[in-house]
Amino acid sequence: MFKSRGKEMQIYIVPGIGTGPTTLSAFDAALNSAGIANFNLIKLSSVIPPNATIVPQDQPLPAGTLPGEWGDRLYVVMAEQRGDTPNVEAWAGIGWVQDQETGRGLFVEHEGQSEQAVRRDITHSLEALMATRNVDFGEIQMQVVGRVCTHHPVCAMVAAVYQVSDWENRPHLI
Amino acid sequence: MFKSRGKEMQIYIVPGIGTGPTTLSAFDAALNSAGIANFNLIKLSSVIPPNATIVPQDQPLPAGTLPGEWGDRLYVVMAEQRGDTPNVEAWAGIGWVQDQETGRGLFVEHEGQSEQAVRRDITHSLEALMATRNVDFGEIQMQVVGRVCTHHPVCAMVAAVYQVSDWENRPHLI
Amino acid sequence: MFKSRGKEMQIYIVPGIGTGPTTLSAFDAALNSAGIANFNLIKLSSVIPPNATIVPQDQPLPAGTLPGEWGDRLYVVMAEQRGDTPNVEAWAGIGWVQDQETGRGLFVEHEGQSEQAVRRDITHSLEALMATRNVDFGEIQMQVVGRVCTHHPVCAMVAAVYQVSDWENRPHLI
Repeated sequence: MFKSRGKEMQIYIVPGIGTGPTTLSAFDAALNSAGIANFNLIKLSSVIPPNATIVPQDQPLPAGTLPGEWGDRLYVVMAEQRGDTPNVEAWAGIGWVQDQETGRGLFVEHEGQSEQAVRRDITHSLEALMATRNVDFGEIQMQVVGRVCTHHPVCAMVAAVYQVSDWENRPHLI
Repeated sequence: MFKSRGKEMQIYIVPGIGTGPTTLSAFDAALNSAGIANFNLIKLSSVIPPNATIVPQDQPLPAGTLPGEWGDRLYVVMAEQRGDTPNVEAWAGIGWVQDQETGRGLFVEHEGQSEQAVRRDITHSLEALMATRNVDFGEIQMQVVGRVCTHHPVCAMVAAVYQVSDWENRPHLI
Repeated sequence: MFKSRGKEMQIYIVPGIGTGPTTLSAFDAALNSAGIANFNLIKLSSVIPPNATIVPQDQPLPAGTLPGEWGDRLYVVMAEQRGDTPNVEAWAGIGWVQDQETGRGLFVEHEGQSEQAVRRDITHSLEALMATRNVDFGEIQMQVVGRVCTHHPVCAMVAAVYQVSDWENRPHLI
């Protein structure tokens, strides 16, 4: 395939939906349904390293899938939409492209109140990111989730999970 | 007590209040009154590692309490509310629970325009986070600060201070 | 000059302007015009380490200026203003002071819809940050960029580029 300086890494794409008495607890419930609620998340701006394999998940990550321990830092690209207005929808999605030759890729994250708008923005953004770099990284893929807010605050969230670092700054590749 | 993989770490909880000619300078003054203004802060999403001891502070951290040097990275959970509307209050708070058996814990951060709302949100969020995980980590604790905006922008801030990393990526546990 | 614990580091100040079909793609185009679009950015709160030399750039960083590889983490202080309302301007700027004796310094970042407001806020904030610390770090410098939104979303961005970390947590000083 392609060679790269770094060790191989897997980037799981995990969707989550949650509700709670506050928008913060709805966000936490979404993280929990994705299997990443017990890490300290740090957000990245969204480039796929050449040595990464993208692994989309439909289900929560089973306990023990991720290395590291409760409270470690987890580096993620994340789209999340919180909402607390009844009958309004919350949608979030991550899209990506990855060059099969070099392994280089790009993520984009979008949020909004309709699935259609989120999917359209993901497509438009990735097309523009490739045009800016004058590259064609192939077919656009995406994972998008959402739900309507009823009585309680809701959160829709999709995360791309890069790496765990413990508090002695040791890396734990996934 | 409990055993864990990592080295022991202290997490100070430091409150700060500040004013200034801009909301940014009010935020900086709040960080300064807490003793953490001369680090590069990186925000975490708020999980307490099992090997951590929570140390709430009423006063600014004395110079020299934190390891590391001017300009190092400091990882924090933070609640902060900035305001520049006269007669409107700015309130921020962090709440936490920690299991006495395993040492695992959770932070939540909330901000708003009234002390009562911030305290209520902290309680509701922590109750929901424990319910989501099906755990009871014991009594809820919190540190909440605020003040009213008069002529100048104000900022109310509470930070939980995890670890310093220097620019050669060496960790400095607190 | 002054001595310090850490290795010498350069902090480039890079401005960027971009447009695109979405505000996210306009932001990416601004990063690309600055030469930093292919890193995973992590935002810092803005303190200049004593061992740093500030290097303002008018042009994009030439390829190969920064160490590290596509997808590595890049720690930055960043001001960015996105806009999608025709005839409205987007302005962003970073200002700084650095003590010639100790090398210690401070950044501030401001955004808005007029150049004048951004420049004024930068000046007021840096004056306040120095007053809070009871220091005089000398003359205020700044880099400010902007443009008017026409048909497409725009982004004005200025970044101060600290350090690259690869996914095995090795630091690459600039």
